[in-house]
Amino acid sequence: MFNAKIRSDTLKEIVSIVSTLVDEAKFNITPDGFNLKAVDPAHVAMIDLDVEKAAFEEFVADETELGIDLDKMKEVLRLAGSGDILEIVQDEDRNRLVMTVGNITRRMNLVDTTGMSDPRVPNLSLPASISVNINEMQRGIKAAESVSDHIALTASKDGFEMYSEGDTDSVSLKLPKDLLATLEIEESVKSLYPLDYFSNMMKAIPSGTIVSINLGSDYPVKIGFELADGKGVVNYLLAPRIESD
Amino acid sequence: MFNAKIRSDTLKEIVSIVSTLVDEAKFNITPDGFNLKAVDPAHVAMIDLDVEKAAFEEFVADETELGIDLDKMKEVLRLAGSGDILEIVQDEDRNRLVMTVGNITRRMNLVDTTGMSDPRVPNLSLPASISVNINEMQRGIKAAESVSDHIALTASKDGFEMYSEGDTDSVSLKLPKDLLATLEIEESVKSLYPLDYFSNMMKAIPSGTIVSINLGSDYPVKIGFELADGKGVVNYLLAPRIESD
Amino acid sequence: MFNAKIRSDTLKEIVSIVSTLVDEAKFNITPDGFNLKAVDPAHVAMIDLDVEKAAFEEFVADETELGIDLDKMKEVLRLAGSGDILEIVQDEDRNRLVMTVGNITRRMNLVDTTGMSDPRVPNLSLPASISVNINEMQRGIKAAESVSDHIALTASKDGFEMYSEGDTDSVSLKLPKDLLATLEIEESVKSLYPLDYFSNMMKAIPSGTIVSINLGSDYPVKIGFELADGKGVVNYLLAPRIESD
Repeated sequence: MFNAKIRSDTLKEIVSIVSTLVDEAKFNITPDGFNLKAVDPAHVAMIDLDVEKAAFEEFVADETELGIDLDKMKEVLRLAGSGDILEIVQDEDRNRLVMTVGNITRRMNLVDTTGMSDPRVPNLSLPASISVNINEMQRGIKAAESVSDHIALTASKDGFEMYSEGDTDSVSLKLPKDLLATLEIEESVKSLYPLDYFSNMMKAIPSGTIVSINLGSDYPVKIGFELADGKGVVNYLLAPRIESD
Repeated sequence: MFNAKIRSDTLKEIVSIVSTLVDEAKFNITPDGFNLKAVDPAHVAMIDLDVEKAAFEEFVADETELGIDLDKMKEVLRLAGSGDILEIVQDEDRNRLVMTVGNITRRMNLVDTTGMSDPRVPNLSLPASISVNINEMQRGIKAAESVSDHIALTASKDGFEMYSEGDTDSVSLKLPKDLLATLEIEESVKSLYPLDYFSNMMKAIPSGTIVSINLGSDYPVKIGFELADGKGVVNYLLAPRIESD
Repeated sequence: MFNAKIRSDTLKEIVSIVSTLVDEAKFNITPDGFNLKAVDPAHVAMIDLDVEKAAFEEFVADETELGIDLDKMKEVLRLAGSGDILEIVQDEDRNRLVMTVGNITRRMNLVDTTGMSDPRVPNLSLPASISVNINEMQRGIKAAESVSDHIALTASKDGFEMYSEGDTDSVSLKLPKDLLATLEIEESVKSLYPLDYFSNMMKAIPSGTIVSINLGSDYPVKIGFELADGKGVVNYLLAPRIESD
């Protein structure tokens, strides 16, 4: 059983974040909120999302799994203004989700979750950690996209750098210590990542959000942040691209 | 003879409404205004439009027929700001229309009207009639387009409903009695219509307009409204799609 | 040696104007500013641009030539807000240009200028000259594009006219004497020009700019204007299209 009301802006945030990696996802509902774990089809990136009951205007649920087509949810969200409240109800008899916004009701078949196992989230111990306002990074990512399809992230006790190199051009974004919210370094680190994944993830994060970035050398990067006014927690993981030369 | 001035916004309204169904149209001019009747190329929908002389800033005309390419008229309208006045003059010697906006003059060949007969507007007696602010309906039409290519309109003494059903999903917009401007019902009715036509018509209607919708069961729907600040009257007719199930 | 700072808006103006004709250009740098001369690949149009040192916030340079890919410069400009200052430094050792905006640094290979000779600017004595606010002309150009791919410019002691004629339609923009800033006529003149070139040039000119247009009969048109708050001067030349019938 699942019966909830949520502000359209909050649901939009959640759906944007998840749909950077997958088109369909299994929402593991409990009486206290929901968790969602998903890996993108190429097994390069992972999302682990927890949202508390308090992110909703109303929330009444038993333990249940909802397989949801995120594109359909986006279609409903496009009908909602920014102050609107959406009602979402599970119709267990017909295995449907019923979404209502204003006088409009959309009934959608739920996606079969049989093949959707929860990926195991690796327990990484990463030697470098920074936190920074996402706005500082988004312009650098846009610049990097002009020259390359991968991006190097490095951290040292002096600060954080994103660096991309193409055949003729290179782009770097340097954020010295004083532009970072926090900087904790056990050792200097550097890893290379696929830029399209990194860019999609970072662009979906709402403006002004403080993100924590945990790095090692040739290790996955872990990007953590809050959403829904602190009622939700996201952890993205992105596998490194190993430099061959 | 036809020699007129009109506010660009008023002409834009008229051209948008007519061009949902046809690219070229015959304007039947009289000394008191004009009438236009047109059927779309697939013979699914009809428009019957009357515009009074008073919708124009200046209007001097004899009885005449003007065959107009609406795309060309849109091109001229794109040059005009919202407060601009357009001058439109028939050049009978050269069978041209001369449109002037500011210092720009566009001369365009008139379209041959020989093959453009006026369609006969059927006299329908429809048992259900509602009127409603177009804004209430436009969001429902957008929602319906996500799931299907047809839409069912139903009216009963409780209110009005638009319903669309696709393979896996359905959308309904329910407007109970108190959200309607008027509701007159002799019997409950239901008809199915092609959504693309219905959507194009409804989206061309200016925001805030009150539309009257006349319905029967498996009958054409008649959609009436005023434009040009009440100086023009439009009646759309749209043929039903008969359910073959 | 070249080491300069410039407001992003000023550089945007310059790059837009030059890139109507070429994708790459040779900037001839001196201690006092730079000059750029370029001909489009089809040899139909030419630009001659002078920008003073004073258009820059800072400017330190020896005589040098910089071959610049304008698309790359546009990519960097897209990262800058309207008040931002860009730093541009020549890296002579690596034959690179280093552009910095905020915390972002883009290093780009310079283009080889060996094959880029400076075109000779013809010294034309043209019998008609008008000057006019570019805004008066831009709407007329848009109108002309609907009907034809060439445009006739005529000037007489009564004023200036742009005229385009297609198979069925024609467009004219008449600017009588009193709508022109200046009008100097030795003889009435008329020339035909390719509309795509003329349109691209005129659309790149910032709103409100006063342009001077120098014309002869079947002669190139010379279009002159200032940019960068009067610290730069542009002269465009566009070859006529000779009417064959």
